[in-house]
Order: sequence, then structure tokens, then C-alpha cells
Amino acid sequence: MTTQPTLSPAEADVCCPSLTVSPLSIEDAHDFARILKAVADPTRLRLVSLIAAHEQQEACVCDLTEPVGLGQPTVSHHLKILVDAGVLHREKRGVWSYYSLEAATLNRLSEFLSPG
Amino acid sequence: MTTQPTLSPAEADVCCPSLTVSPLSIEDAHDFARILKAVADPTRLRLVSLIAAHEQQEACVCDLTEPVGLGQPTVSHHLKILVDAGVLHREKRGVWSYYSLEAATLNRLSEFLSPG
Repeated sequence: MTTQPTLSPAEADVCCPSLTVSPLSIEDAHDFARILKAVADPTRLRLVSLIAAHEQQEACVCDLTEPVGLGQPTVSHHLKILVDAGVLHREKRGVWSYYSLEAATLNRLSEFLSPG
Repeated sequence: MTTQPTLSPAEADVCCPSLTVSPLSIEDAHDFARILKAVADPTRLRLVSLIAAHEQQEACVCDLTEPVGLGQPTVSHHLKILVDAGVLHREKRGVWSYYSLEAATLNRLSEFLSPG
């Protein structure tokens, strides 16, 4: 379901800044702050975890409204923020959009924050 | 400089929720969103990376104002948010407070976000 490949550890070393290895550039700091802001919300964290735990690791809005106790417009708004930040992938099939994790983005965040 | 020990992988398995393993509880979602909000800011990310790259992995406000181009009150405000979230440790020695990383908190965040 993901369009970006997961980075191997060797690729991550070459391409990806780490919070604790050297001073971050202003550009990298803004880039990671943008992705972190998208996930720094309790409802959005729960939506990501619900999608990850759902059958085939994908879900539509219709699967998510009841578990988080919110209406479809609110859930769709949160999902859009996660898609825009590259944390979720959206695929339209028939009348529904199906959401799945962008594992490469979560991996990049996890590697970035790891104190090594 | 850290007061909390770094969690071993075995301890992390037992104690720490993961975003992609099972649906998050409301309590865990709020807990992690609080820590993520503290780091989801470009200036605070740069401060953490500057402290990590500084001699002995600790720094005082006086070391940090020039690299981020902000005044001491603003930098102190950002550092307080990071200390309150458990991302930095503060130790007062003489007239200055010295800030260092709480590796256990960064490790917990990194493990939490890892897609496995």
C-alpha cells in the first residue's frame, strides 16, 4: 500500500539527519517539526494505531469514526493532515478511500529521534 | 547526566506501547502526544541537536542563544518545555543550569514510532 520504499539502515545513514548526531540545519528542523506536528495529537495517534491494527493494515473513514467517537468530517480532517505529512497513504477504490501507513515516514521519524 | 536509565529492548517490549502494534489507549495517546508536541517545533529540535553535539553532551543557555539567534528568555522558555516533557534534564551548578538529553525519553519515542 505504500508508494515509498522502506529505507535500509545503510540508506538511512546516508540520507537522513539524526537529532542527536550533529546540529540540525534550519531546513531539516522545519521538515521534521512539520511531520512531528501532524502526529502530535491524541486523536491522530489513535487513528494511526487503529489503521495499523485493522485487517490488512488499512481502513476507511467508516471503520474509524466509531472507535474514536467522532463524526466523519472530523475524522476525515485528521486523516488529511496525516496524508499531507506523508504519515498515511490514501487510495481511492470505488466510493471509499482506504488509508494505510507510510512505513518509510514512520521509520524516518523513529531513526531521527533515536539517541543511538 | 540523565536520571532515568535507558530501557533495554526487553524492558521496552514489556513496558512501552507501540503506535503500530495495537490500538492505543486514550491515556497512552495523550501521553505520547504531549511529548511529541514538545519536540514538534523547529527551534526546540535545533536546541536538542545543539545540546547533543555540544562538549560532554550538555550546554547552558549561554551556549545556545547565538546558534539559534534568539534571546535568553525565549531560549529558556523552549528549554523549560523540553524539561517538562522529560526530553531534557536540567542540573544547576553554580550560577548556570546545564541541560543534557534524557536518552530514555527519546528512546521511548523512537521505539513508539518505529513501524517494526
